[in-house]
Amino acid sequence: MEYGSEALARLVDEFSRLPGIGRKSARRLAFHVLKADDDTIKRLAEALTDVKSRVVFCDVCHNVTEASPCPLCSDARRPDEVVCVVEEPSDVLAIEATGEYQGRYHVLHGVLSPLDGVGPDDLKVKELLARVREAAPREVILALNPDTEGDATAFYLHKLLAPLGCEVSRIARGIPVGGDLEFADQVTLGRAIQGRELMRR
Amino acid sequence: MEYGSEALARLVDEFSRLPGIGRKSARRLAFHVLKADDDTIKRLAEALTDVKSRVVFCDVCHNVTEASPCPLCSDARRPDEVVCVVEEPSDVLAIEATGEYQGRYHVLHGVLSPLDGVGPDDLKVKELLARVREAAPREVILALNPDTEGDATAFYLHKLLAPLGCEVSRIARGIPVGGDLEFADQVTLGRAIQGRELMRR
Repeated sequence: MEYGSEALARLVDEFSRLPGIGRKSARRLAFHVLKADDDTIKRLAEALTDVKSRVVFCDVCHNVTEASPCPLCSDARRPDEVVCVVEEPSDVLAIEATGEYQGRYHVLHGVLSPLDGVGPDDLKVKELLARVREAAPREVILALNPDTEGDATAFYLHKLLAPLGCEVSRIARGIPVGGDLEFADQVTLGRAIQGRELMRR
Repeated sequence: MEYGSEALARLVDEFSRLPGIGRKSARRLAFHVLKADDDTIKRLAEALTDVKSRVVFCDVCHNVTEASPCPLCSDARRPDEVVCVVEEPSDVLAIEATGEYQGRYHVLHGVLSPLDGVGPDDLKVKELLARVREAAPREVILALNPDTEGDATAFYLHKLLAPLGCEVSRIARGIPVGGDLEFADQVTLGRAIQGRELMRR
């Protein structure tokens, strides 16, 4: 028994299965659990099982929620004419935090990734097309990550969405605010030049 | 409701209370939990509560165990004449993994840290002195971290242990194996020179 306790060894195992948590972090977390008071750990254990039992996916946008349709989809003040397509529920949070967007969302739950065996049927693509056909938004914004898989998914969705009569846009790629031209990579800088904006007089 | 679900927000909160897990990692972990299958999460929640209910501290060395005295303390093949003092249970694992030490252990559960309000009474110092008085080991090895607090604790313990008639030693500080002189900091390099070992003919 490496840890002097089989229960402790199992907790280290379970922690190290979480994403971004290696063997050493898992060990540190497990020893933290040992030292923490009983209530704290009971709360964590309950929060884990609660999430699995209480959280569902919204039938409209497929974001996480405790009641479908979710608060964002049932908010009558948000215009239906723009739909923002994102990869993950966490992206909705990130965009909401900017305060720059008031429209609707659609969560794909991933991107096309043939190497990992993720095809269109594993994503909420069919649901997006049905929704666009029915609600006929003026514009669909593709807010996917600017990596190879995000780009491929954006091109794929554009091909499917264009015939449905809505405009399709992508979020801008460029130099991050507060970034430094000198340290930007060539591709990003190239995109920033391509996507330059005219300054108003 | 920032996350569209109060249960999810609470899980993010609970995760972000763990050491080394910031807000963003907590969010990533929570979304991982959402996607993981029910069994995996049930196992993690059970492992958490199991550890709290099954793990106790050894009455002799204060290491974690499921039955006191722990396997290391009740192992009759280990000599009683050397006791290695460490800060945390995880340090016992690290030293056991080297295979270089066969003696007994004593876990302090921390180091002296006046700024954090940690004094001798918060550590297993009294227990160490009682144990040394009773078992009269030949040598006590202080295997504390080579930082300010570890150093202060080592000097403090040395002062208390010396009158009890045992030898007190510290683990060597020096250039890590595989390290590079050029990139070692001055203090470490200085210690390595001070602590140089005579080569046998």
